[in-house]
Amino acid sequence: MSVVKLEECRQHIRAQLDSVVEFWLKYSHDTEHGGFFTCIGRDGKVYDELKYVWLQGRQVWMYCRLYRSVDRFRRPEILEAAKAGGAFLRKFARVSNSGNQWKCAFCLTRDGKPTKVQRTIFSECFYVMAMDELSRVTGDEEMQLEAEQMMEQLIYWVREDSSGLGRPQLPGDVPTNSMAVPMMLLCLVQQLSEGRLETGRKYAELGSWCVSQIQQHIQRDGTAILENVSLAGAELPGCLGRLQNPGHALEAGWFLLQYAAQNHNKEIQRTAIEKFVQLPYESGWDEEYGGLFYFLDVDGHCPTQLEWSMKLWWPHSEALVAFLMAYSQTKQPKLLERFFKVYEYTFSHFPDSNSGEWFGYLTQEGKVALDFKGGPFKGFFHVPRCLYMCESILDDLLAEKD
Amino acid sequence: MSVVKLEECRQHIRAQLDSVVEFWLKYSHDTEHGGFFTCIGRDGKVYDELKYVWLQGRQVWMYCRLYRSVDRFRRPEILEAAKAGGAFLRKFARVSNSGNQWKCAFCLTRDGKPTKVQRTIFSECFYVMAMDELSRVTGDEEMQLEAEQMMEQLIYWVREDSSGLGRPQLPGDVPTNSMAVPMMLLCLVQQLSEGRLETGRKYAELGSWCVSQIQQHIQRDGTAILENVSLAGAELPGCLGRLQNPGHALEAGWFLLQYAAQNHNKEIQRTAIEKFVQLPYESGWDEEYGGLFYFLDVDGHCPTQLEWSMKLWWPHSEALVAFLMAYSQTKQPKLLERFFKVYEYTFSHFPDSNSGEWFGYLTQEGKVALDFKGGPFKGFFHVPRCLYMCESILDDLLAEKD
Repeated sequence: MSVVKLEECRQHIRAQLDSVVEFWLKYSHDTEHGGFFTCIGRDGKVYDELKYVWLQGRQVWMYCRLYRSVDRFRRPEILEAAKAGGAFLRKFARVSNSGNQWKCAFCLTRDGKPTKVQRTIFSECFYVMAMDELSRVTGDEEMQLEAEQMMEQLIYWVREDSSGLGRPQLPGDVPTNSMAVPMMLLCLVQQLSEGRLETGRKYAELGSWCVSQIQQHIQRDGTAILENVSLAGAELPGCLGRLQNPGHALEAGWFLLQYAAQNHNKEIQRTAIEKFVQLPYESGWDEEYGGLFYFLDVDGHCPTQLEWSMKLWWPHSEALVAFLMAYSQTKQPKLLERFFKVYEYTFSHFPDSNSGEWFGYLTQEGKVALDFKGGPFKGFFHVPRCLYMCESILDDLLAEKD
Repeated sequence: MSVVKLEECRQHIRAQLDSVVEFWLKYSHDTEHGGFFTCIGRDGKVYDELKYVWLQGRQVWMYCRLYRSVDRFRRPEILEAAKAGGAFLRKFARVSNSGNQWKCAFCLTRDGKPTKVQRTIFSECFYVMAMDELSRVTGDEEMQLEAEQMMEQLIYWVREDSSGLGRPQLPGDVPTNSMAVPMMLLCLVQQLSEGRLETGRKYAELGSWCVSQIQQHIQRDGTAILENVSLAGAELPGCLGRLQNPGHALEAGWFLLQYAAQNHNKEIQRTAIEKFVQLPYESGWDEEYGGLFYFLDVDGHCPTQLEWSMKLWWPHSEALVAFLMAYSQTKQPKLLERFFKVYEYTFSHFPDSNSGEWFGYLTQEGKVALDFKGGPFKGFFHVPRCLYMCESILDDLLAEKD
């Protein structure tokens, strides 16, 4: 692969990142109440004022990460917006009357009143990510302590007793190892441990547990990644057990690659690439129209999710990071070829050349099906994280080639 | 409109109903545990054994209604299957450890263990429908009493205190009048009151309340039906407030037409036709590809539901009943024209001429997107109810013309 092509790619990704950051700086800030609007239409207009906590936390994290890691984003307006978002979260995200001081809402009104609480751990996870990263740029130790305290609560819910999440125990509801849970905890372990030896030691066992929990999703004699397995790592019956989510598996893939690099573990690196990067691509790529399916059934049944055949922005973002990171660690040409195949589909389908940012939801055939730039599940996160990480990996690759 | 065309239509609908009934008789019965499989693939194969309580109740109701009302379906195997479904529901549907003897599960394992409980009233509603209709064919008075007792619980949840449903009270979560709730209760009032003068009197006030609650959804100076309004009947902010569900409005339309006929109320009949039948059709019909959209935003924003532009079987089923009933009550030719427009789209897109029954989920362009015949939300209900009602209305129309 020529240096010229990699350099062109870096330039393109860099310009995309700049444009995406400008979009959110321009349209998403609520200067009255703090926090961010995330329901943002095609041309930047706010079409709903609700504030989704996942997306508030993610945007705080992303702003801080860009501010901290990329020279050209070390701009006061980015830091100020992140601080205002952090203050909004600290003031309003926790559901004070839930009987647990750590439970966060899923969604808030513009002025911070909770409208919905999920009986899962993810609002709290993004709260931890936000607070930890924000504390790294502000130096606020109390905030960092709060992130670690909430992390302890998360670990308790996942590994000790989940009853505090409010889900009733039902005889037919078999406890499940859902990919999202160990993935998210592994992400938090990496977040909290970065550059902190003692914290790294504290969470080492948890990180290792997350990795083994993620590996339990390798099923069917190593030929498939399944999204939900039993706590003992066995396949579950029915649609739930047969479900595949290629984008999620690819995201888990690069989480594992990061873990493998940090721990100099070639075995995990190999598993990550073979099972969590290659397999989901092979089963998830639509040979007819291009792009990655959202959901599949490992036995070829039709998934029951109405959106199963749609092409979403985030699996493509995750695939770009996964293939480029896998290539940068191994230099296998095939991995770079696949990166470019995903790259071509992604950049010819998702970005909106008129108003900036990416469309999020395409039909199977690649037509824009939902034309907003932000919604209840699409905020300032997957797109800029992908672009930031790809730019950074390309920087390293090109530096090596010099 | 010629008698010949109506007669052809009746013959076609009759043949479709026969074929759909045969499909479910053949593939859906669980002769081991009772109840019905509803996750049934394109060719009749069960792809998941979970039993969704809404669909169990609906199938019991539909079998009994056909057995009771249509001579050719007064077949022992239909009655026996309905009884087995009723027994399964009575044995397993109620979540015994929920702290409320009337709360039903949303989903059960094949052998009846609850896997999920919704914090809404709908499982219980379909339980009432099933038990009342079954008691009408079996003469089981205890079962009928049970249906009425559960109805009392439903009324209490809806009109007095919903806290027993388990949804936490949140400061930002404004109580909402969702179309589904008064529609469903009105449907139950009609079910329980049929042919019973005293019960009819008992529920008369409730029926009238449901009608006024449904009419609160007429918004924007009478130009739109909105799916969610405030308890005071005002428009709600954001996507929730702007949401339109044309199929649901059309279904409410024929519920109101039935109510208007029973109560000899021309004013409600006019409202039903103008607001709940014509308006949703006009706003909901896709002029480009044909068919009814699933969701729309009254201000033309893109809905946030990923499936908003898909064409689903049930809005088309409801539209057929609504237009044919509206025509039969008024004889306005335009209503019959629209019935035939929906009819042509429906029968050229949804039925599977190879394996029987209908596909449920098409893309906006009309391609089959999910190819199963039954799933978590598609069972033996909307298709046969539509065909049974249309056949019955056509019988009356053709008898008048003789």
